[in-house]
Amino acid sequence: MTQVSASQSGVTDVYFDFLCPFAWRGLELADVLRREHGLKFRLRHFSLVQGNHAENPDRKRPTWWLDQQVAGQGSELQAGSLNAFLAGQAALKQPEDAAWAFTLALFRARHQPVDGQMVAGYNGADFQNDTVIRAAAEGTLDLAQFDADLQDQDGLRSALHDDLRASADLGVFGTPTFHLPDGNIAYFRFANLVTEPQAALDLWTLYTRVLTDGARIETIKRAK
Amino acid sequence: MTQVSASQSGVTDVYFDFLCPFAWRGLELADVLRREHGLKFRLRHFSLVQGNHAENPDRKRPTWWLDQQVAGQGSELQAGSLNAFLAGQAALKQPEDAAWAFTLALFRARHQPVDGQMVAGYNGADFQNDTVIRAAAEGTLDLAQFDADLQDQDGLRSALHDDLRASADLGVFGTPTFHLPDGNIAYFRFANLVTEPQAALDLWTLYTRVLTDGARIETIKRAK
Repeated sequence: MTQVSASQSGVTDVYFDFLCPFAWRGLELADVLRREHGLKFRLRHFSLVQGNHAENPDRKRPTWWLDQQVAGQGSELQAGSLNAFLAGQAALKQPEDAAWAFTLALFRARHQPVDGQMVAGYNGADFQNDTVIRAAAEGTLDLAQFDADLQDQDGLRSALHDDLRASADLGVFGTPTFHLPDGNIAYFRFANLVTEPQAALDLWTLYTRVLTDGARIETIKRAK
Repeated sequence: MTQVSASQSGVTDVYFDFLCPFAWRGLELADVLRREHGLKFRLRHFSLVQGNHAENPDRKRPTWWLDQQVAGQGSELQAGSLNAFLAGQAALKQPEDAAWAFTLALFRARHQPVDGQMVAGYNGADFQNDTVIRAAAEGTLDLAQFDADLQDQDGLRSALHDDLRASADLGVFGTPTFHLPDGNIAYFRFANLVTEPQAALDLWTLYTRVLTDGARIETIKRAK
């Protein structure tokens, strides 16, 4: 039985983009760790559209910000991720379990395979309002409160900006990226969904050991 | 005490470029594992100059090959790494310990800090013939044999091509990259030299666990 180590106490910030299938798997992992092992995570947003934008050659000094774009403007990825992020920020105003349930429902709407493959319709969904409403209804959000919070677009955009600013300052470049309480921070990409509690804790322990090893491991990346 | 696991038996190919300071640390690690723990590694060459060349946009299908360039031609990195690779191939014709001693001496000539920093002269060396001769003299190579083998430039270039071909087929993109006997293959970058035998084995075990975990970890990479 793997024990929760000292480096696993405190709050880990997890940076994610709803567009990213690896962020989905990372959030499912974090949710198991949160529910089954009492680890603490804070949901933070990082935008791949912003991070990869041609006007942002310097990762740490963006000039093009997703939170400053007009709603519905730009590519489906741009408009959809902005809509998803603002809904995610509204959900974060509610109790933690409800916010996580919504976040995961929105991720699953796009990324969770059905019968092992993506299907048209709900899975593979865009992030327009219909998808947001269905994800909200699936979970435990107070829907009246959620609707009211969604009206405060300026406040939601300001909260999103804080996340995008923090992730730029940290040099986040992909999702999921976990920022441990001890300051270690790294992108963590894995292909297979892990939901069994002990396997989840073992995987997390392996990841944190990589980041805390005395060799100061900077990168492990498969060739392919 | 970490045990050598089944996944650590068999021969691991280590792809490296003499230009790369992380490859140097990877080779020092492999040398400790080889000498102290009986693990088996095969020295293979991957060229960063070729891999990053503008004429090679498709990593797996290079059209510009380092082994086909005229000696002394191109940048210091191009000419130096070609010279180092050909000398490395000549050293590989001798017994394993001698080949490793030469390979490490050549790496240390360029990358090993003296008193904690790079100095002019031997450390920080280029890979011209003077450096090669000094590295050869430091180790246990049969120098007459080494000189004779260096004359067979066509044979050395052919052997180098085989390594560059193999690494391209595998999708190698940086060094060091370790190709395990079980088929897992990944770039492994760490910042601190590890030479203590138990620490070396623990680090190697951690790396191989990342590659064999059921989650199929694809990337762990620090943000910075």
